Amino acid sequence: MNGPIKTMAGSLYARQALLPEGFRDQLVPEAEQEASLVRQLVDTFLSHAYDRVSPPLVEYEDSLLVGAGLTSSAKMFRIMDSNTQRMMAVRCDMTIQMARLAATRFADQERPLRLAYAGSVLRTKGSQIRPARQFTQAGIELVGCESLEGEMEVIAIAVEALKAVGIAEVSLDLTLPPLASLLCDAKGITGDDRTAVLSALGAKDIGAFNGLKDRALFEALVSATGPVDTALVALKTIGFEGEAASLVERLIRLVEMLQEKLPSLPVTLDPCETHGFEYKTGIGFALFARNGNGELGRGGRYAVTHADGHTEEATGFSVYLDSLMDALPVATAAQKIFLPFNTSASEGVRLRTEGWRTIQGLTVEADCRKEAARLGCTHIFEKGAVCAL
Amino acid sequence: MNGPIKTMAGSLYARQALLPEGFRDQLVPEAEQEASLVRQLVDTFLSHAYDRVSPPLVEYEDSLLVGAGLTSSAKMFRIMDSNTQRMMAVRCDMTIQMARLAATRFADQERPLRLAYAGSVLRTKGSQIRPARQFTQAGIELVGCESLEGEMEVIAIAVEALKAVGIAEVSLDLTLPPLASLLCDAKGITGDDRTAVLSALGAKDIGAFNGLKDRALFEALVSATGPVDTALVALKTIGFEGEAASLVERLIRLVEMLQEKLPSLPVTLDPCETHGFEYKTGIGFALFARNGNGELGRGGRYAVTHADGHTEEATGFSVYLDSLMDALPVATAAQKIFLPFNTSASEGVRLRTEGWRTIQGLTVEADCRKEAARLGCTHIFEKGAVCAL
Repeated sequence: MNGPIKTMAGSLYARQALLPEGFRDQLVPEAEQEASLVRQLVDTFLSHAYDRVSPPLVEYEDSLLVGAGLTSSAKMFRIMDSNTQRMMAVRCDMTIQMARLAATRFADQERPLRLAYAGSVLRTKGSQIRPARQFTQAGIELVGCESLEGEMEVIAIAVEALKAVGIAEVSLDLTLPPLASLLCDAKGITGDDRTAVLSALGAKDIGAFNGLKDRALFEALVSATGPVDTALVALKTIGFEGEAASLVERLIRLVEMLQEKLPSLPVTLDPCETHGFEYKTGIGFALFARNGNGELGRGGRYAVTHADGHTEEATGFSVYLDSLMDALPVATAAQKIFLPFNTSASEGVRLRTEGWRTIQGLTVEADCRKEAARLGCTHIFEKGAVCAL
Repeated sequence: MNGPIKTMAGSLYARQALLPEGFRDQLVPEAEQEASLVRQLVDTFLSHAYDRVSPPLVEYEDSLLVGAGLTSSAKMFRIMDSNTQRMMAVRCDMTIQMARLAATRFADQERPLRLAYAGSVLRTKGSQIRPARQFTQAGIELVGCESLEGEMEVIAIAVEALKAVGIAEVSLDLTLPPLASLLCDAKGITGDDRTAVLSALGAKDIGAFNGLKDRALFEALVSATGPVDTALVALKTIGFEGEAASLVERLIRLVEMLQEKLPSLPVTLDPCETHGFEYKTGIGFALFARNGNGELGRGGRYAVTHADGHTEEATGFSVYLDSLMDALPVATAAQKIFLPFNTSASEGVRLRTEGWRTIQGLTVEADCRKEAARLGCTHIFEKGAVCAL
């Protein structure tokens, strides 16, 4: 996409061609492909009666720095509101805004509440694996459903939406973000030991458990990772107690539901994973293209905090369009047909109704085919007929 | 859309419900209506082989403060790029970015270049007639066509796009933004006199021309305003010279083309109008819903400046979605059908394929009709059939 650019070194226009790192021009056909993918994803969400909402790009800083937003403060660009001298922030994640809507504007709406969204988010810094600082995010939130039917619905819609945009084989990775902390609590592991254990679990670094009293527990947890058939057997052999036991029991039941309702969906378990799931309060999940590289989207259960302090259970899912586009074939440019200068307007209308993209010739040309080729057309309208060039 | 909000005075969540002035949550069904309108507008642009591009929300300040952007500096929010300590700006108008693309990435592409875009823009301050500080803008640019066929194509596509989204009767107002300045130049009117003349022309305040040597000329210009049939007769009686004469001659030819190609389009002239057309170098135009209040979109001819200093002729058109939505009937919420808990998944698939929005019941209900009504459904799936509630 970075074709030759006419520049004069040091000139205004040389600078003009440079965008800040992590920001880019989407050109042809990527811009159209992304818009089309958003359209298809949202259409799937709407077909399940999720209501589309569109919060603003910018809010007062303190309304974005609550709940899940608290951990994202450093990711948000700040803008001074000259009207009020109050600091505003640019959203870095739309799920924070969905939680705000659920707790404020939609507080009195019937539950479960079903919200769908798509829009741009900005980040102050790109990461190594994702250098971009502007993305498009699309997703859904199911608010006010405590049962596993909630996870089941959101996962099923996520899988359906990804298949509908052309991800042939979707696979699902289930995580238990609160589990590692619950186990540390139960075993009285605090301070540096706790940090080391959580980090080693994330890295699946069994060696780091050497010398730990509860070494066997954490080693067993790491071994309960992988394809669900074997990992679940390993997980069931571990004796969990209290909240951890309830969480694992919930996971076991979800796997049973998935096997009944989406029997062809490959499922893996990763009970040690917490990275990127920091604010999840229950089961988390990530979706992958089976033969692709990266994660396509993720979601899970979290809590929405209301004005009176009570919390409400919610389950969501979101996808980043750049990841999705990386997993799909490169889009091809659309076919275009050239209409020579004197083509009647009604012929143009007819061709566009049939789905053609028509380029109207704006000058009389001696060689219309040459002109059509120059403008990148694949076809020309000649003697009342569509002709391939 | 501002329903009851649960808040505790002074609490975080009371603040959380407040958005900065000029920013708002688009809820149901407005968010969906706007997205659907953007989709339809862009589909019309694409059908005429305009290529969709999507530049970033944020650029370095100096790449947005060129050409037309120079007059918009105060409208742009600034963000410090912590990576480079360089100032960035949030776009307040996507046409500035289209000119940048034409002059840089697309400098070597064949002409005419046809670009389409849609996206969010932010403004530091709302105006009295438009208090919003975030809008969605959609439009096209035809770059590198000097002939009147350019204006004709852009106007025709603008009218087609507006009709396609449901504006039954579109009307067109033609302006000559450079004319007033050209006349002042020709008559040697400078300084305060010039400012007064330009302001009086904009306000059509004939009284302000009293005592002016060229009073008759400016009075005649003001009288050449209104429906094209009478205004054009008045305009033709004025003896223009030099560049002004060429510009008026061009307008007369465009009116002839419009009468031939879009005979049912009502056209008015406003040769005195310059407000909002500051960077136009030729004919400008605005589009209205015939029985509506405000302007729906505007466009015209301007110059793209290249790296080597040469300029290139371009004609564009853009529409703001808030104006468009004000001119259209209020959207109605979509119909939803309730699927009781044990409805088979395949029935849901079938109904969604038929275009239904299905709400899956997540619990066993004694009274499914009551549950369907509680969730705002218009229909329920009962005994294998779609039943209205």
